[in-house]
Amino acid sequence: MALTIAVVGVGLIGGSFALAAKQAGIARRVLGVSSPATLGKALALGIVDEGMTLEEAAPQADLILLSATIQSIIETMPRLRGLVRAGAIVTDAGSTKRAIVKAAQAVAEMEFIGGHPMAGKEKGGVEEADPSLFQGRLWVLTTEDGVTSPRFDELQELVRTIGAKPVRMSAAQHDAAVARTSHLPQLLSTALAASLEQSFHQETPVLAGPGLLDATRLALSPFPVWKDILATNRDEIRTAMAEYLNEWQTQFDALSGEGDLEAQFTRAAAFAKRLRD
Amino acid sequence: MALTIAVVGVGLIGGSFALAAKQAGIARRVLGVSSPATLGKALALGIVDEGMTLEEAAPQADLILLSATIQSIIETMPRLRGLVRAGAIVTDAGSTKRAIVKAAQAVAEMEFIGGHPMAGKEKGGVEEADPSLFQGRLWVLTTEDGVTSPRFDELQELVRTIGAKPVRMSAAQHDAAVARTSHLPQLLSTALAASLEQSFHQETPVLAGPGLLDATRLALSPFPVWKDILATNRDEIRTAMAEYLNEWQTQFDALSGEGDLEAQFTRAAAFAKRLRD
Repeated sequence: MALTIAVVGVGLIGGSFALAAKQAGIARRVLGVSSPATLGKALALGIVDEGMTLEEAAPQADLILLSATIQSIIETMPRLRGLVRAGAIVTDAGSTKRAIVKAAQAVAEMEFIGGHPMAGKEKGGVEEADPSLFQGRLWVLTTEDGVTSPRFDELQELVRTIGAKPVRMSAAQHDAAVARTSHLPQLLSTALAASLEQSFHQETPVLAGPGLLDATRLALSPFPVWKDILATNRDEIRTAMAEYLNEWQTQFDALSGEGDLEAQFTRAAAFAKRLRD
Repeated sequence: MALTIAVVGVGLIGGSFALAAKQAGIARRVLGVSSPATLGKALALGIVDEGMTLEEAAPQADLILLSATIQSIIETMPRLRGLVRAGAIVTDAGSTKRAIVKAAQAVAEMEFIGGHPMAGKEKGGVEEADPSLFQGRLWVLTTEDGVTSPRFDELQELVRTIGAKPVRMSAAQHDAAVARTSHLPQLLSTALAASLEQSFHQETPVLAGPGLLDATRLALSPFPVWKDILATNRDEIRTAMAEYLNEWQTQFDALSGEGDLEAQFTRAAAFAKRLRD
């Protein structure tokens, strides 16, 4: 396998994918589609071999990875019409899947496989690209009917080759799961830090232990990344918030003298341990 | 300064304090008051020099540190009546302060200074005792009227000598602050893990990234520790939860199409950065 790979959006994820594919001997040539500034850095770092436009890159590629923001991935879809080679794999790395898969389905004669590598770093950008970023991490690949195609199997194998663990599910299953495992924790951390920002004025010492650092780490995330995620997964996030509120209500009741929290703490600790096994 | 120190409740905090005081040359002798099993370990580890009852230890001590659970500290107070040497320092390491300070005030002729070292480890127990546990960590010392006594100044200096940063405030100020920086984050993490435990059945893959590990770390805490904390700080925790709910409501409204979250994310990130400075 020696593929020509087009990476559309050469940031942390796209750049790391390019490096990992090169290191694994999968990529013959990596074509980068990004802003001139980013392409300059990616060329200098040996992450892409050539920078060009989408219209130039897509017809040459055996594999196209859309790894810009969700909104930009959605806007790229109609531009791919008629550009993609027969038999080429088109996939993406967006953090939500339903809106992207829907936009892809509107493009005739293109087989699209939604993807989401569950990997990242505190800092983004092509300078942070790292060929080992996906090592041991889950990588979701979507199939709407549970049936896989030869291209799906090929992409799944490729994901495995660069060290990730492929997981197969529908776009809807994905969005429901990440609403709970990623989007809800983000909102909790942001609301906590925002609430404390109101309580602790600049001159007040914040009595913080290591637990508060953990609890506010996600709150460091920049809003632009989250704007698109929230906009494309509203319904599932609201459902996850409502489920969460049941547990919260149990706590509020216990603090008002009704019931105790032992059973809740026990269930929570069991889940937290399971995550770490 | 070479003091006889009585540690009542020789666990992670009490044991670490004993080791730190020995290492700093502050302790001439450490008397341990704990269960026989714990005293056996503490003696073997060289953490205490002698094990005895409260009634034997208190009259000999220049400094008494109450470092058992909150409920046990409260129950120890009336037993100290008439046992404490004139001029001795009596302090504690409980995670809430109002109930403990109130119980101490009922004991005539004893000057009590409430304390709370903001330090800990994932695992407790005397086996985990570590003389460097308090290095660089905040250590709250309470004064109800803002006035300090010679004993307060002495204890403050001692806390500094073992590497901690003393912070002076009233018991009520302390309890209000930790309701927000410690108790609220604990409840959020527990509610999150409990909610996810309902969503992800044993056979369902949890699409978890590093953010979820951070967000569920506090959920590993055992309930017995939290039972007393919640019972002695109900009112402040409920107020903190209500404040938090304002931020949550902003999020829920934004996800329903009313307003956006940019300002909230910006405030939250600013606070999270301030914590790390």
